[in-house]
Amino acid sequence: MDITTVGLDADDTLWHSETYFSVTEQRFHALLAPWCDSSEAADRLLLRERNNLEVFGYGIKGFTLSMVETAIEASEGSIPVGALEQIIGWGKEMLTHPVELLPAVQDTVGRLQGRYRLALITKGDLFHQESKIAESGLADRFDSVDVLAEKSAATYSTLLDRMGVEPSEFLMVGNSVRSDVLPVLEIGGSAVHIPYAVTWGHEVVADNGELERPWAELRSMADLPDYLDGLV
Amino acid sequence: MDITTVGLDADDTLWHSETYFSVTEQRFHALLAPWCDSSEAADRLLLRERNNLEVFGYGIKGFTLSMVETAIEASEGSIPVGALEQIIGWGKEMLTHPVELLPAVQDTVGRLQGRYRLALITKGDLFHQESKIAESGLADRFDSVDVLAEKSAATYSTLLDRMGVEPSEFLMVGNSVRSDVLPVLEIGGSAVHIPYAVTWGHEVVADNGELERPWAELRSMADLPDYLDGLV
Repeated sequence: MDITTVGLDADDTLWHSETYFSVTEQRFHALLAPWCDSSEAADRLLLRERNNLEVFGYGIKGFTLSMVETAIEASEGSIPVGALEQIIGWGKEMLTHPVELLPAVQDTVGRLQGRYRLALITKGDLFHQESKIAESGLADRFDSVDVLAEKSAATYSTLLDRMGVEPSEFLMVGNSVRSDVLPVLEIGGSAVHIPYAVTWGHEVVADNGELERPWAELRSMADLPDYLDGLV
Repeated sequence: MDITTVGLDADDTLWHSETYFSVTEQRFHALLAPWCDSSEAADRLLLRERNNLEVFGYGIKGFTLSMVETAIEASEGSIPVGALEQIIGWGKEMLTHPVELLPAVQDTVGRLQGRYRLALITKGDLFHQESKIAESGLADRFDSVDVLAEKSAATYSTLLDRMGVEPSEFLMVGNSVRSDVLPVLEIGGSAVHIPYAVTWGHEVVADNGELERPWAELRSMADLPDYLDGLV
């Protein structure tokens, strides 16, 4: 069946996001330098984030709380209160960072609009995602906007049902193999992977060289319209 | 037009929520007792929450971060790090607190199911709301479940559009005049207010005695089926 509906991920697909996490993590490692080296700080933080995931879900507020906890733990409680205040300040900076679109996004979304039903499908913190969508100026270009708590075969399935779209006519585009590609293939849809410069540890999929890749990989959103034309 | 669709708020309408905030705030006031009295602690926290609302949105993670900030500020940085760790622990306790349904909810929702299109319409933290909805065991009783970042005339309007429901056939039930009643009346829908024992400062609507009340006020979810029968 021809593709009628294109789903687009938002963070690190339409606009920068992981870069800001990365910059904040660098600062965090520097803050913890009196107590541990960067690599230990990174390991501790990722572990803490993973443990907190089922309580906090995704997003910057949970990330900020995880940094505060990691800082207290790594310093065995000897970190000054002012440093914790600073961490919360970084969280707020991230939450209020202007939206910066990735290259070719504006143009590509414009070219796809009208030719496909365009669905913005993102995950994470509802409030922050909606703020970014509004600020991006792209909201009107999409036929639907959905923020999911988690991207899984089940949540994609429910969403496509509600949209009245068959998986066979649906193609998802995003930077995360774990969230944007694998669950969509699982329900019989198609997917295009456009890697971002940085991938969060939690989203990394182990690749022992035996991973089959029945999906397309593009270098940039600029290549998407031609790729879709080629499918017809 | 007859009511075809009943919207139900979740926190403090279907299950307890504000009570847990209240209990945590009592603990928070006790924690700050060396630096300020309860009333000052409460004022500082509400002010901080309000200032943070446009960055954090609603929900327990933002509340927790606001408590940490307030504690640092009220103690002028002299609060021990362990106390801040404790505050984060309270946030996690709240996030993992079992869902406790309010009286008559199970029965009332069962009686309305099939007679009305039932829409669960809540606001706040997507991840936590979805966890609670799943845990409540009520998800299957609803025809739709939507978590909004904010409940306003505009967001209700968009939601009803998507559901294909006219405001005149829609009745919203909830504990907050600000979020569940006023915006729904504004777009031409109906509303029923069922007050909860505790109202968060931010949701309080000033009542100088001149506020018109063109909406019904019920004491409990138990009274809802009869009220709806009376409308026909």
